[in-house]
Amino acid sequence: MTTFDLVIQNGTLLTMDPENRVIENGCLCISGDTIAHVGDHIPEDHKASKTINAGGGLIIPGLINGHTHAPMSLFKGLADDLPLMEWLNQYIFPVEKNMDADFIYTGTLLACAEMILSGTTTFCDMYLFEDHVAAAAFQSGVRCLVGEVLYDFPSPNYGDLENGFVYTERLINKWKNNPLVSIAVEPHALFTCSPELLERANQMALNHKTPLIIHFAETLAEVEAIKKKYGRSPLEHLEALNIAGSHLIADHAVHLDPSEIEKMAGYGIKVIHNAESNMKLSSGIAPVPQMIAQGITVGMGTDGGASNNNMDLFTEMDMAAKLHKVQAMDPTVMDALTVLKMATIEGAKALGIGHITGSLETGKKADIIVIDTRKPHLTPMYNPFSHLVYAARGQDVKHTIINGRLVMENRQLLTLNLEEVMARAMEKAVDVRKWVSSQ
Amino acid sequence: MTTFDLVIQNGTLLTMDPENRVIENGCLCISGDTIAHVGDHIPEDHKASKTINAGGGLIIPGLINGHTHAPMSLFKGLADDLPLMEWLNQYIFPVEKNMDADFIYTGTLLACAEMILSGTTTFCDMYLFEDHVAAAAFQSGVRCLVGEVLYDFPSPNYGDLENGFVYTERLINKWKNNPLVSIAVEPHALFTCSPELLERANQMALNHKTPLIIHFAETLAEVEAIKKKYGRSPLEHLEALNIAGSHLIADHAVHLDPSEIEKMAGYGIKVIHNAESNMKLSSGIAPVPQMIAQGITVGMGTDGGASNNNMDLFTEMDMAAKLHKVQAMDPTVMDALTVLKMATIEGAKALGIGHITGSLETGKKADIIVIDTRKPHLTPMYNPFSHLVYAARGQDVKHTIINGRLVMENRQLLTLNLEEVMARAMEKAVDVRKWVSSQ
Repeated sequence: MTTFDLVIQNGTLLTMDPENRVIENGCLCISGDTIAHVGDHIPEDHKASKTINAGGGLIIPGLINGHTHAPMSLFKGLADDLPLMEWLNQYIFPVEKNMDADFIYTGTLLACAEMILSGTTTFCDMYLFEDHVAAAAFQSGVRCLVGEVLYDFPSPNYGDLENGFVYTERLINKWKNNPLVSIAVEPHALFTCSPELLERANQMALNHKTPLIIHFAETLAEVEAIKKKYGRSPLEHLEALNIAGSHLIADHAVHLDPSEIEKMAGYGIKVIHNAESNMKLSSGIAPVPQMIAQGITVGMGTDGGASNNNMDLFTEMDMAAKLHKVQAMDPTVMDALTVLKMATIEGAKALGIGHITGSLETGKKADIIVIDTRKPHLTPMYNPFSHLVYAARGQDVKHTIINGRLVMENRQLLTLNLEEVMARAMEKAVDVRKWVSSQ
Repeated sequence: MTTFDLVIQNGTLLTMDPENRVIENGCLCISGDTIAHVGDHIPEDHKASKTINAGGGLIIPGLINGHTHAPMSLFKGLADDLPLMEWLNQYIFPVEKNMDADFIYTGTLLACAEMILSGTTTFCDMYLFEDHVAAAAFQSGVRCLVGEVLYDFPSPNYGDLENGFVYTERLINKWKNNPLVSIAVEPHALFTCSPELLERANQMALNHKTPLIIHFAETLAEVEAIKKKYGRSPLEHLEALNIAGSHLIADHAVHLDPSEIEKMAGYGIKVIHNAESNMKLSSGIAPVPQMIAQGITVGMGTDGGASNNNMDLFTEMDMAAKLHKVQAMDPTVMDALTVLKMATIEGAKALGIGHITGSLETGKKADIIVIDTRKPHLTPMYNPFSHLVYAARGQDVKHTIINGRLVMENRQLLTLNLEEVMARAMEKAVDVRKWVSSQ
């Protein structure tokens, strides 16, 4: 008699596997950190140490937030509806100038609480003091791919750029064997990073076999700045620097023409789409249906708390699905299944961890969420994919499991003291207000 | 010593009154169905029969859903991501052909449950068997303005059009003195209603001093059809029929040029914006910032459950705010306060009930919701308006009061048996599946 550590039953499994298997009244069994069985009943000669009753709800892979600045969760609502430069100069920069490691740690705990509560099991982060982002994610039990932002000017964390490379190298070595944390090399953007910085960052990523992550073609101003400075488009600039490749994750990728999309597909560049942030900041509408049609792997992100202002991937899915329909004036664009894939298996593939997470398959890590569908806004249910994209919200997630560990049960966080995290966040907000007003 | 029936305290009052007063640690007192006091403490020589502790959260006017087809809550997720005609012919029409009063009643109870749970206290409905919509809303304790849809073809409810006018007149007389239910005259759209129908409906609305409500300029196809049939634009058609006036509520109003917007403002025509539905059905993007700039009163609606697929006005606000920013490529467009007004006081004004509801003012009916902000996605809070639009969700509503009556307390519905409503809805869904598959 073998014993599974955790068994989830009495729910509909949406596996998001290559066959898109849907198993009604399914059963998923976990051994340690790994999915040991996916089927319609627990295998014979097995029993469960602990069983979760999904209550007739949906059992799906944990969601993948492909682009975040998690600590900016402390800035949400600080400043909205402003022109970009006013937003940056009067709010964001004054705060970033003053923040420290404890600020980052607190902000990340807050973001992890929000993510767990809304069904996100993996996030990909770019910000400052990322060692502390990693530590907070690890404490929270959330899977992550993180990297220290590199740019041409001094960093509030590491100071001169040279130290940024040292810091990144240390991160890579420190977290190398961690079960939850992976490190990427993360130059900020083409307009904030010199060609030398970009080439060196790329070399470091290739040497360590980590992803290279960059904000890319997010705004028209950025595209014009690159054209003016280098006489070529952002993609041509990547090509000239020999950076375009399958290890590259391009966040945003809003302003691209059809030939560039085709080229990006050829290079195997991955894209993270941030519909809500691109809308809120008026950056533009990324040509996502066209990218997917060309075979580009496209994941989905919320971006930072100051430009969204939430980390709920359910509403991100809803907004992305609807945005592209009205943009194309075609209701068949970005159907629910395509969008749910972006937030699960395609998102995992975009981050280079499609073999680890993003679907419910034997041998993968157990990153799983259970959705409570016994609510009026999810009743009746004709099509679970439709409900997940167009009707469900993060607060419908009832249980969250990451790497085999139950991190939320019946909406209670098990890895964090929520009251304490919120109290610490409110203390940091006092500092934020002070820093902004002393401008 | 006078006694208030209900007192809400220990929260921040966002009154949405003409001065947009915000009262921290405020106190709102209710006598019967009416707001008797708004201030920072309970008046001397008064006490409370019942007190609600807002727990440091936000106390705001109940939200106004300006355009719904409430019973279609039973269709949500039935068919998505389809071309319009396939959606209508294969799904919506077969179901509507078969439905009856009990179906409508059940669907409306389900919609009312969702609305109360997500902070909507008033809705404006257009559909079939509206007497049963009104009855279900009244049972649920939700304020509504409803009307039977009128069009040139036979109705599954009343049969020939002549009976539709009789039915509408009966509705008006039956519900005349109801504290929650009001009746409107509701021709479906310009392309489904003959000029005679429209003129007669308009006359009935004027005679009874009720609003006249119509789908208007929702799609390009509709605009082209009107131009082809009558040789004039939809607005010119309204003008020719002498229908354009301040009693007219135009749902959608997507396809308008600047001169038409100016004219509509001149007539005092009200508009209900349905961002999510217009996106999901690829109808287009209504020129809302331009309409508001011209002085048109614009409210906000979710439209029916089959084209959204939810009735959460919080995500509707979020989506509308972001959609218009990216459309205008200007992040200052549709700021949070403007959007919250659309979902409260402007929505109430659009429905002709701005003197009754939509703001927290002494003498108005007590339609109030309390938002629980002690959650990580709402912590910290720099600006309550921002959080309500960009971060809060319907499930953050903790208490809902309509017409002085507590209809939800601590997220428990007090007017409906939720389990029973969902069970009945699931039974109706069995019929829906049968009707669709027997096509």
